[in-house]
Amino acid sequence: MSLIRIAVMATGSELLNGSSSDTNTRDIARLLGEVGYRLTTSVCVGDDPDAIARSLRQLLTDYDVIICTGGLGSTGDDLTAKTVALALGRALEENPKAVEMIAQNCKERQRDFDAPLRRQAQMPQKSVPLVNQVGTAPGFWLRQQNCDLFFLPGVPAEMRPMMQNAVIPALQRTKPGGAPLKQRNFKFFGLSEPQLEARVPYKDLPPGIDVGFSLDYPLVKITLRCQSPLAATLLDDAQALLLDKLGDYLAETDEETMPALVGRLLKRAGLRLSLAESCTGGLLSHLLTSVAGSSDFFERAGITYADAAKIDWLGVPRDIIAQQGAVSAECATAMAQGLRAVTGTDLTLAITGIAGPGGGSLDKPVGTVFLALAAEDLCQVRGYQFHGDRQKIQRMSAFMAMEWLRRFALEAG
Amino acid sequence: MSLIRIAVMATGSELLNGSSSDTNTRDIARLLGEVGYRLTTSVCVGDDPDAIARSLRQLLTDYDVIICTGGLGSTGDDLTAKTVALALGRALEENPKAVEMIAQNCKERQRDFDAPLRRQAQMPQKSVPLVNQVGTAPGFWLRQQNCDLFFLPGVPAEMRPMMQNAVIPALQRTKPGGAPLKQRNFKFFGLSEPQLEARVPYKDLPPGIDVGFSLDYPLVKITLRCQSPLAATLLDDAQALLLDKLGDYLAETDEETMPALVGRLLKRAGLRLSLAESCTGGLLSHLLTSVAGSSDFFERAGITYADAAKIDWLGVPRDIIAQQGAVSAECATAMAQGLRAVTGTDLTLAITGIAGPGGGSLDKPVGTVFLALAAEDLCQVRGYQFHGDRQKIQRMSAFMAMEWLRRFALEAG
Repeated sequence: MSLIRIAVMATGSELLNGSSSDTNTRDIARLLGEVGYRLTTSVCVGDDPDAIARSLRQLLTDYDVIICTGGLGSTGDDLTAKTVALALGRALEENPKAVEMIAQNCKERQRDFDAPLRRQAQMPQKSVPLVNQVGTAPGFWLRQQNCDLFFLPGVPAEMRPMMQNAVIPALQRTKPGGAPLKQRNFKFFGLSEPQLEARVPYKDLPPGIDVGFSLDYPLVKITLRCQSPLAATLLDDAQALLLDKLGDYLAETDEETMPALVGRLLKRAGLRLSLAESCTGGLLSHLLTSVAGSSDFFERAGITYADAAKIDWLGVPRDIIAQQGAVSAECATAMAQGLRAVTGTDLTLAITGIAGPGGGSLDKPVGTVFLALAAEDLCQVRGYQFHGDRQKIQRMSAFMAMEWLRRFALEAG
Repeated sequence: MSLIRIAVMATGSELLNGSSSDTNTRDIARLLGEVGYRLTTSVCVGDDPDAIARSLRQLLTDYDVIICTGGLGSTGDDLTAKTVALALGRALEENPKAVEMIAQNCKERQRDFDAPLRRQAQMPQKSVPLVNQVGTAPGFWLRQQNCDLFFLPGVPAEMRPMMQNAVIPALQRTKPGGAPLKQRNFKFFGLSEPQLEARVPYKDLPPGIDVGFSLDYPLVKITLRCQSPLAATLLDDAQALLLDKLGDYLAETDEETMPALVGRLLKRAGLRLSLAESCTGGLLSHLLTSVAGSSDFFERAGITYADAAKIDWLGVPRDIIAQQGAVSAECATAMAQGLRAVTGTDLTLAITGIAGPGGGSLDKPVGTVFLALAAEDLCQVRGYQFHGDRQKIQRMSAFMAMEWLRRFALEAG
């Protein structure tokens, strides 16, 4: 692993007044990781010369490399170059190579090379300008107290190619990195974070494998990370051990989302699917059809909010709705069976429930959800009591349905 | 304006290895701004006790308030409490009130109060636990060297209510804020960012109003911002001037999303709605039913991928599909009219098109989409050529449909 200490300094008042999140740090970290550098810290400061200067001087004593984003444009709040020159005790001067870059850029875009644009060539003395292929403002690179400082625009689409084409090659020449940091993500359904953690075979994992947890409701994500020249092999081993314990709950990988997985398994099993959704209002259909090629297995869905829709599209008997209610195991069963009879689809799944916030009762509180699945010679129904707001209940219902479809198609395929 | 210096320290290796962006800082800044506090800086550090301790001690000398997010869960990389105790020279001890909070939480969720959960009650000595209404891990608040330090979970949905219900009231008692920074967001559909900007009445806006633009595809967001004791009045004036020019394109406000707006207008007009979706696969139904109370206007939707579904649920004549194809103005019209005849709903809307990436042809390339709307004495059809990937085409189609429904309901209401 590289021991080079790298800091990102993101500048821009929009990062500290609630308007925007700093996404550049993540992108820089990813690009650095791929070539064996690791980010140690990142700092956001506003468009305030004192704050920028102070933060810069503090970072300068602690870090080998500082990558600064933002404040290189031609508007009034773009004051990085001036501030940096002052903070580092250098003159601000027009860099002839930067003037050329901007002039060239204007020529390519048939744009006037005016004074505000030319101001972007003002840089601290002894800076090396960095070409910006996307926007007009060049970046710059300078060295002070053995620290390499890179200044890049804040616009992500301009920043990223400059990282790849200028900063990383420069870094690799001056301060070689270590082994690349590789990572793989796995998302699980049906176990909580503590339950998953208890089953991770930590003792057996190869050394150097880092295990991280995060939530993507209702899925829990486990990230395996490894920084080593052998990362690919070590991650293969770790992945095999992890999935040996937890593969049964695996819902998503970096290569395949849960809707894509369900679709693939249905196609493999040669099963066509139709859905009847009530409380999920089309969320399940939307998830399954967000994947390209879903028409290969997806036949249709009835989003049957009104009782009349359940009766005439799905053939649910009036009596069931009148006696058991539209939110009942009996109605879910009738929806799935009726849909199968009406459409002749191999496999049908029905969802009925109360997503809230209204519509709950003592008997059937908000979060009461029934799922029913019908196939040849089979009709099952399951009842749940989910918690949370409308969005969470709808999402949990849709994922529970996908989980059922996944397991059914897996066995059928 | 308040002169209190506030720093956010976001912890989590995922913030520095390219996995995630820190979005908590933005949310914290927004919540603080609303009550007159301004964020001075934010720092990200990894799950590394040395780095956390070092950063904490550095911030402690420079700031009046530190809000720290992340590392409060029950897994191995959740080490904030222990690290903070060590860094501040305090013992780590089980906080009895925190134990109670966790026990109460488990009871409400009918969950076992096990050892990993109980570990979340370990806090630095003299901490005040902060109740977490969403997750299991309580936060904590402590004071050191006149600095107030707040420790919150990293999960945004847990962090936000704790900011509002615990941190801000505590801050307001101990370190009163200044004039609030208020902002209002308006999202528009149907005009591009340059088109919108050209119509903003900059000259007429009251002084101190800041105007920002950003994209939320397919909507363009305009943010009006003002920091002043008179912010509410000034923003009222600015809003009136803005909407006088652009109100006709207004799709969303902070109070109402586009699906909620469409639903409200349909209810006001006394119109019930049914949908027939093909290429959007349920996205439009999902959007409209994600709003509470949608059953008041939403009757049903047929997600009719297969031709058979269009024929037997919507009554589309076989000939139309055979001769004009399922993606055609004729088919869209037949879908909307047929759905209206079948269901007797006041208003029906049909979408058929090619979301891609497959299925396009020279005649009907990917992005070809037809919308049809049927009501009493009315049936109209509109054809579009959208651009982008599957997700963008589905999203644009659904928003174009909502826009049509909005205008129709507005005139009918």
